[in-house]
Amino acid sequence: MTRRLSVVGLGPGRADWCLPAAADRLATATDLVGYGPYLDLIAVPTVGRRHPSGNRVEADRAAFALDLAAGGADVAVVSSGDPGIFAMAAAVFEQVELDPPRWSGIDIEVIPGVTAAQAAAARIGAPLGHDFCTISLSDVLKPWEVVERRIEAAAGADFVLAFYNPISRHRPWQLGRALEIVRCHRDGATPVVVARQVGRPDEEVHVVELGRLVPDDVDMRTVLVIGSSTTRTVAVNGREVVYTPRRYAGSLDSALVVPAVVGRPAI
Amino acid sequence: MTRRLSVVGLGPGRADWCLPAAADRLATATDLVGYGPYLDLIAVPTVGRRHPSGNRVEADRAAFALDLAAGGADVAVVSSGDPGIFAMAAAVFEQVELDPPRWSGIDIEVIPGVTAAQAAAARIGAPLGHDFCTISLSDVLKPWEVVERRIEAAAGADFVLAFYNPISRHRPWQLGRALEIVRCHRDGATPVVVARQVGRPDEEVHVVELGRLVPDDVDMRTVLVIGSSTTRTVAVNGREVVYTPRRYAGSLDSALVVPAVVGRPAI
Repeated sequence: MTRRLSVVGLGPGRADWCLPAAADRLATATDLVGYGPYLDLIAVPTVGRRHPSGNRVEADRAAFALDLAAGGADVAVVSSGDPGIFAMAAAVFEQVELDPPRWSGIDIEVIPGVTAAQAAAARIGAPLGHDFCTISLSDVLKPWEVVERRIEAAAGADFVLAFYNPISRHRPWQLGRALEIVRCHRDGATPVVVARQVGRPDEEVHVVELGRLVPDDVDMRTVLVIGSSTTRTVAVNGREVVYTPRRYAGSLDSALVVPAVVGRPAI
Repeated sequence: MTRRLSVVGLGPGRADWCLPAAADRLATATDLVGYGPYLDLIAVPTVGRRHPSGNRVEADRAAFALDLAAGGADVAVVSSGDPGIFAMAAAVFEQVELDPPRWSGIDIEVIPGVTAAQAAAARIGAPLGHDFCTISLSDVLKPWEVVERRIEAAAGADFVLAFYNPISRHRPWQLGRALEIVRCHRDGATPVVVARQVGRPDEEVHVVELGRLVPDDVDMRTVLVIGSSTTRTVAVNGREVVYTPRRYAGSLDSALVVPAVVGRPAI
């Protein structure tokens, strides 16, 4: 009996941005489990039965997939992006830990993928070229105070910030509060990458100054990448590129330091 | 004339963990530019001339690649992992900004890849399942005070920490100091994922308690992932798995909170 469960990352949606290891598992699995719209994103031919489920039922979905595998199936649990980042891999291990005997003997593997912040970064330049933090603004699974504390710390220490789950119908005010905190530490001219549906046909990636970013222009399919004090916007062939230099003023290698941006505080 | 430059991520080294978009560019480029050992990692057949260079000459390498493209070549600049994360994409844009007319008219694109922390996470479970920070411990390109300040902030706000470039012959003491800072904020039993050469034949991934991690056991080919207060080590089929639950004590969804680990401070 197979008894196998692979947690598989589709990447952002483009077939050529999905790992061959992931495509192989999707093609051969006997059962495909995931949030319905993610199953619809699968770009390779599949033979397995599809078990779509709603959003926000990750624990039930993980238990269902584990039960299938325990019964002898070869299961692929499908996430978009990287299943290890704010996605199904942790949900599967949470379930296993709650009831180990129920699911003993299942071979569990995780196949990574390109996560939304990486996809957004690649489309706009290299904003993640230096130290960065990845934060989910959702307070469904953690207290809002924890989110604020992390934003405050990361903004104060001049990390580039990637915000996942920035806003939703049920969480309308959190992004505005998060931006207030960041604006206490960053110049209003700091570039923010607003990336919606990267890798999909309706992809939209643009750059807004931190001081001009309005939460109403952001939706739940968007990832935000907020620059640090050194992140720069430059024109390359008439295209707006955002990147964070690898060098920081005052480094040992200071002869090669890129000139500082006028009007941004040096740290 | 082509005048094209693609900054391409190989991922960690396994051919089936490299994006098809990257493999395609590697296969068709007229010229392949990169650190020698990374060019040797390319797992697809190539036709282009290879231009290997030493480590720590990223600026020269980027300028050389841009000159090739300006002369009509179809160039692939090769990084391991994701070229947008502590790698060649930022180096290329730095050069372009220094002398835009020299390299005008070149079509520059970035193709992302699975970065070391993602690969390590997938091999051991899901330690990046919640908010995390990615920090390079190298003080070649930034002052050590900036590194310390970021570690202090990220450790204090209970982020999972991914350390890149943790140690080298020329930077022998920095990791020890970094661990001192983290130990002020985290229990000694916190799991640390020590991942060396993930995705390559000599891959080694293991888990050490923070209190027992010794810098001498780490080398420059290692990435470290240090858990937050909620990161857990569990046995799954006799295999040690490390994951960070998506839930945090006190969340709205508290009925589903995984029981807290005894002996770790709740935050």
